[in-house]
Amino acid sequence: MTAGQHVSAPDESGRETRRARVALACLFEPGRLDLGELVAELGPVEALARVRDGSGPDRLCRIAQVRAGRDIGRIEEHAGRLDARVVIPEDDEWPDQTADLVRLSRRHHVDYFPPLCLWVRGEPRLDEALARSVAVVGARAATEYGAHVASEIGFGLADRGWSVVSGGAYGIDAAAHRGALAAGGVTAAVFACGVDHAYPVGHVGLFERIVDEGGLLVSEWPPGVTPGRHRFLVRNRLIAAVTRGTVVVEAAARSGSRATLHRARGMGRAVMAVPGPVTSAMSVGAHLEVREERARLVTGVAEILEEVGRIGDDLAPVPRGGAQPRDALGPQAAQVLDAVPAAGYVTAEQIASQAGVPISDVLRTMPLLVLAGMVEEVDGRFRLAAAHQAPTSAAHRPTPELR
Amino acid sequence: MTAGQHVSAPDESGRETRRARVALACLFEPGRLDLGELVAELGPVEALARVRDGSGPDRLCRIAQVRAGRDIGRIEEHAGRLDARVVIPEDDEWPDQTADLVRLSRRHHVDYFPPLCLWVRGEPRLDEALARSVAVVGARAATEYGAHVASEIGFGLADRGWSVVSGGAYGIDAAAHRGALAAGGVTAAVFACGVDHAYPVGHVGLFERIVDEGGLLVSEWPPGVTPGRHRFLVRNRLIAAVTRGTVVVEAAARSGSRATLHRARGMGRAVMAVPGPVTSAMSVGAHLEVREERARLVTGVAEILEEVGRIGDDLAPVPRGGAQPRDALGPQAAQVLDAVPAAGYVTAEQIASQAGVPISDVLRTMPLLVLAGMVEEVDGRFRLAAAHQAPTSAAHRPTPELR
Repeated sequence: MTAGQHVSAPDESGRETRRARVALACLFEPGRLDLGELVAELGPVEALARVRDGSGPDRLCRIAQVRAGRDIGRIEEHAGRLDARVVIPEDDEWPDQTADLVRLSRRHHVDYFPPLCLWVRGEPRLDEALARSVAVVGARAATEYGAHVASEIGFGLADRGWSVVSGGAYGIDAAAHRGALAAGGVTAAVFACGVDHAYPVGHVGLFERIVDEGGLLVSEWPPGVTPGRHRFLVRNRLIAAVTRGTVVVEAAARSGSRATLHRARGMGRAVMAVPGPVTSAMSVGAHLEVREERARLVTGVAEILEEVGRIGDDLAPVPRGGAQPRDALGPQAAQVLDAVPAAGYVTAEQIASQAGVPISDVLRTMPLLVLAGMVEEVDGRFRLAAAHQAPTSAAHRPTPELR
Repeated sequence: MTAGQHVSAPDESGRETRRARVALACLFEPGRLDLGELVAELGPVEALARVRDGSGPDRLCRIAQVRAGRDIGRIEEHAGRLDARVVIPEDDEWPDQTADLVRLSRRHHVDYFPPLCLWVRGEPRLDEALARSVAVVGARAATEYGAHVASEIGFGLADRGWSVVSGGAYGIDAAAHRGALAAGGVTAAVFACGVDHAYPVGHVGLFERIVDEGGLLVSEWPPGVTPGRHRFLVRNRLIAAVTRGTVVVEAAARSGSRATLHRARGMGRAVMAVPGPVTSAMSVGAHLEVREERARLVTGVAEILEEVGRIGDDLAPVPRGGAQPRDALGPQAAQVLDAVPAAGYVTAEQIASQAGVPISDVLRTMPLLVLAGMVEEVDGRFRLAAAHQAPTSAAHRPTPELR
């Protein structure tokens, strides 16, 4: 190899990676666990080669064969005309928090894997726009009350420098986006179709405004893909993953918004519900979430920020160098972790008692500790994960007597 | 002594007891811990003699001296003209559940002692009317929404054979009473003044209707006493005590209804709050109760009955006859045991919430209750052991303090 080849190689490999990810995203529906694991193992270039030449997993190869006719070059060209860029995990602006979907997907063995790439319209860097963001979701058939509250929350969050993420739908979603725009803040609409499709069509103007006023349109489907019923639930996991918390404003008993809440909860994000009149069918879902102690009842922006702020502390950047993962924990999360025994599983109540913190805080903290691999859970009981019981971490932990 | 004396003696002593209780209730404001303990120790006749002759506790004697001029005979006569009867703890129709106020009062060292006697207007027996009852309370300045919901709840409870207890005030109270009347059910208004006073005056008609249609007006103040600001909170403890649970429909951030909820919780009663629009100041109190995990969010009668039904089971009956293991329990352990449901496993946290004791105390107590065979544990959740769920009337169960 010449020196020239050495210099160009990384660029060439970057381009190849990008094209492989785009090609895979054009061949397969997003979120597939089997594909995600193949890509995680082999990298996108090799994974693509395997599914194309028939040497990969059978199911994937069969799908790739059926869809072999898709003209990826044309899709890329189309995206270019739209001013849509492809963002891949290897890019600086990739929102790394989407990696939590790997654990969620593996834990429940469902197709919730992170996107292979994202098509994005709008100026802001994706990672920066989403670093401090809250999802505000709810019913399309929102009431005037719900739309008003969603709009107030969107405004209030944006006004305090938080991005507002939603699905661009009629009702609560649109009200939240509009509230954020009214405050001059950043809002991101995550689509269940290509970023070239305005869905619903009535929101063409809203989506143009979002792009024009410093917001983002985001999708894991390539341009040209139309929205499909099954795509909304897949899209919802992404809304939950990129944000620090999800607020459901109005939701019927059965609703996609509740699914978004559950995904958020599964990733240790803040999970919130706004109550409403008990006479309104549109508040049944929110009330159920609170009654079943899954979501925290919130009545306004201050209470939402209290929830995501706390989660924010917990997610504080992990220091590099010899630092321990636990150094990244907020003081209360660290206190909870200290109360988890190395041997023998205990209940959250026992941990609360040991740590001397409210049970509600323990329950809020455990998903994070589990996701972080610090704690193992079996049937609602907890102990320190084996890897976390290293002599180093033990050495850093004060003995009970010294506390 | 002759045989005649033998026969008349119990009647004479019963009359003396009744007159002593009435006299004490005319001399002192209700709820006094010092007076309650004196009466518990000496009985009402001796307690009255001591505070009258100056040989009782100083504070009580001074008050008795100041109020010595009160003409008790006239108060009794007045009550007679009203068709108001005096009910005392020695009567069969006394609501024994008021004894839980002894614990509440002693635990917090506050003047929440049970009433010395009650003035009652209306036909039903007090114990029967209150055996299956729910308090529905809330703001006087209720919204149309709140009044509608309170009325629906009042109707639904009455329709299912539950009595509706409230304070007779404008707003939520009146709506709840009216809902119960509309269903042809039993409703009881507990006054903060004599049962001869219609307070508010605008409710003269409502109160007459309650008496005429098989409901009750109840007060621990003698006829002639006017309502006073401080009397409402004292009254509220009684509403909490006589019912199996309290539902707050609308309440501002600071409100007497929230105080009623706290008393109910302190006695292990079901504590519930109905949400409303977050845009309504009248729902702030209810939302706070839910957010702070004190009250369970309920959206209708079915959910209310789920809560009080459970409490109902809790109050279930310890068999009489030979000594019971629970007789050996300290007061707090007994309180924890009372909060364990007969059906359906609950967490220690739920027990703590129900019993109104710290989670740490519950966790300390449960192993004993499990070892004693009173409680069954599965995966950190608890319910009463089958053998512990014997049937007799809850009304006959003495509280630990009265044994």
